[in-house]
Amino acid sequence: DVNFDPSEHSHRRYNPLTSEWVLLAPHRAKRPWQGQVEAPDTSSSPSHDSGCFLCAGNTRVNGETNPNYQSTFVFKNDFSALVPDTPESSDDDPLFRFSTERGESRVICFSPDHSKTLPLLSVAELESVISTWREQSAELGRDYSWVQIFENKGAAMGCSNPHPHGQVWAQQQLPSLVQSKQRNLLDYAQTHGSNLLADYVDKELERQERIVVCNDDWLVVVPYWAAWPFETLLLPRFDIQRMTDLNQSTQTSLAEIIKQLTTCYDNLFQCSFPYSMGWQGAPYDGLKHNEWRLHAHFYPPLLRSASVKKFMVGYEMLAETQRDITPEQAASRLRGARGIHYKLKPY
Amino acid sequence: DVNFDPSEHSHRRYNPLTSEWVLLAPHRAKRPWQGQVEAPDTSSSPSHDSGCFLCAGNTRVNGETNPNYQSTFVFKNDFSALVPDTPESSDDDPLFRFSTERGESRVICFSPDHSKTLPLLSVAELESVISTWREQSAELGRDYSWVQIFENKGAAMGCSNPHPHGQVWAQQQLPSLVQSKQRNLLDYAQTHGSNLLADYVDKELERQERIVVCNDDWLVVVPYWAAWPFETLLLPRFDIQRMTDLNQSTQTSLAEIIKQLTTCYDNLFQCSFPYSMGWQGAPYDGLKHNEWRLHAHFYPPLLRSASVKKFMVGYEMLAETQRDITPEQAASRLRGARGIHYKLKPY
Ligand SMILES: O=P(O)(O)O[C@H]1O[C@H](CO)[C@@H](O)[C@H](O)[C@H]1O
Ligand SMILES: O=P(O)(O)O[C@H]1O[C@H](CO)[C@@H](O)[C@H](O)[C@H]1O
Repeated sequence: DVNFDPSEHSHRRYNPLTSEWVLLAPHRAKRPWQGQVEAPDTSSSPSHDSGCFLCAGNTRVNGETNPNYQSTFVFKNDFSALVPDTPESSDDDPLFRFSTERGESRVICFSPDHSKTLPLLSVAELESVISTWREQSAELGRDYSWVQIFENKGAAMGCSNPHPHGQVWAQQQLPSLVQSKQRNLLDYAQTHGSNLLADYVDKELERQERIVVCNDDWLVVVPYWAAWPFETLLLPRFDIQRMTDLNQSTQTSLAEIIKQLTTCYDNLFQCSFPYSMGWQGAPYDGLKHNEWRLHAHFYPPLLRSASVKKFMVGYEMLAETQRDITPEQAASRLRGARGIHYKLKPY
Repeated sequence: DVNFDPSEHSHRRYNPLTSEWVLLAPHRAKRPWQGQVEAPDTSSSPSHDSGCFLCAGNTRVNGETNPNYQSTFVFKNDFSALVPDTPESSDDDPLFRFSTERGESRVICFSPDHSKTLPLLSVAELESVISTWREQSAELGRDYSWVQIFENKGAAMGCSNPHPHGQVWAQQQLPSLVQSKQRNLLDYAQTHGSNLLADYVDKELERQERIVVCNDDWLVVVPYWAAWPFETLLLPRFDIQRMTDLNQSTQTSLAEIIKQLTTCYDNLFQCSFPYSMGWQGAPYDGLKHNEWRLHAHFYPPLLRSASVKKFMVGYEMLAETQRDITPEQAASRLRGARGIHYKLKPY
């Protein structure tokens, strides 16, 4: 045991939220890169783009005109994956099992300003985004048990429009990854008599090795079991199950920490950092769900620079997620990128 | 029920190998694409490239010189994720659980010809590739319980070198996705008293809806639960647990079907079709494992054309895999692309 060095030797770490392992091969970070490079997003956009489907006053694909919105703006996705009127049908054949699904998909514009991204919004503007997430969760949570709020940001994440926006998909059934997370949270609560994510917050605050940013209400860590190079987990330091349970003060502190975290991301490689992020909490099924704690995942693909991303292919698709740099190294680099956004620094 | 149309209405299909569901939203295939486009690989390479680390006679990153190989060539990965001499260590803390891992990573060059890909090799040359897979499995299976053979092909799949090659990673512990597959195969065998993949082959041959190519020994389908748009599953029509149990005749028929399948892929969008593929069978642990059947997965990322791929982001990373075109539509399009490789057609 005296010889084992986690930043040198291959080892597997267990993710208690998915009950899957991640293979860490830290020495592999040294290999040269001859593969595909991404076009880093270092562009500046105009505040209004007449060709953008999401800008205020413009016409969308379906012919509707966007209002002259001043803050956030929500509309039904013109190509919704989930719709409310799907006929019911299912089959239990073990090899051809299916079930129809109903739901709704909406787009949430974060700001009328085409050139902005989350770290470039003010704390007050970020609070409006969070309010909109809360309102949407409350409204859709009345009809559906699962409300998935997420943002795909950047071309590298398949995002087809740079206008700052996210999505919300609501549905009747719990999606697979949520079902497995709920099972793992419940198992832990039953085995240990405590909440997994609450215990995890306490231990990360003690160990101090993986913290990126932190305030009185919220903590951001690169989780011990992170899959993506700069993956983070945003956790509350108080007991809260759902987005709809936020109050004025925890909403303000959340706006502040989101601004800090997304600034770290942009500063790291001096580019508009691509990622997928999303919120998860207890289902809207009328039960209390003490095993849950509201949290957000950030999954950014970049690995070495603004143009070299991590590919989850081959071994990862067939066998197990594999990473090079350790979560501790990633957290330390993100911590070092805290402060003022690089675009807002005086020369 | 009379109203449900699987090519029109959103539904979830169950993957019995992973015990996860996939959300199908077939009507979404109609949405316009304004996102990132890939550079389609329609290039032709020289047969020997003096800058390539894998070509015969060239020098690699570590200073070693490749032999003047004529068929396949295997060497230790210069940046192995798994190495044999990792010191042992582990911790059972439920939130910080880890275990060190030992293994080996090797590169397998499929041909000395830099310009070739699997569909452009002759059946005899493909048999040499399969022989090499068998030999590597036999050799590494003596020391390790899991031997993962795979190929990452194309820049879109993070492959950094167009020279035809794959990899083999061997390790002591079963990777997470394999562990879950083994559990599901065993559950099915215990519940139904039969082999899941054997039953599945029979039913797909009956239904005829998802078959891409087929010969006396092998069947390729777009599985009912496919995640990637043109994902396929290559299955034996005879009882075989491991790569090492192939014989001369099943090896020849395998070479033939691999040539046919990879030709369908290239013909579909008239490009060198990117994918990750890999083999899975019973672990090399000395047990019989009747619940297993050797099979290969092909996971290609392309969706609409040689330059527009499917992004597994946002909803997929947080909630559940989601696809647009149905597996039945994908199988029918791949079937339509059978025949002579587009590069080998006379004008
Ligand atoms: O080993 P390579 O080809 O350098 O690397 C590629 O395949 C590996 C195994 O599938 C992945 O972990 C890497 O992300 C990918 O870039
Ligand atoms: O809805 P969009 O932005 O057009 O599409 C994007 O996000 C979806 C939900 O995460 C994914 O299924 C798509 O693959 C991705 O391109």
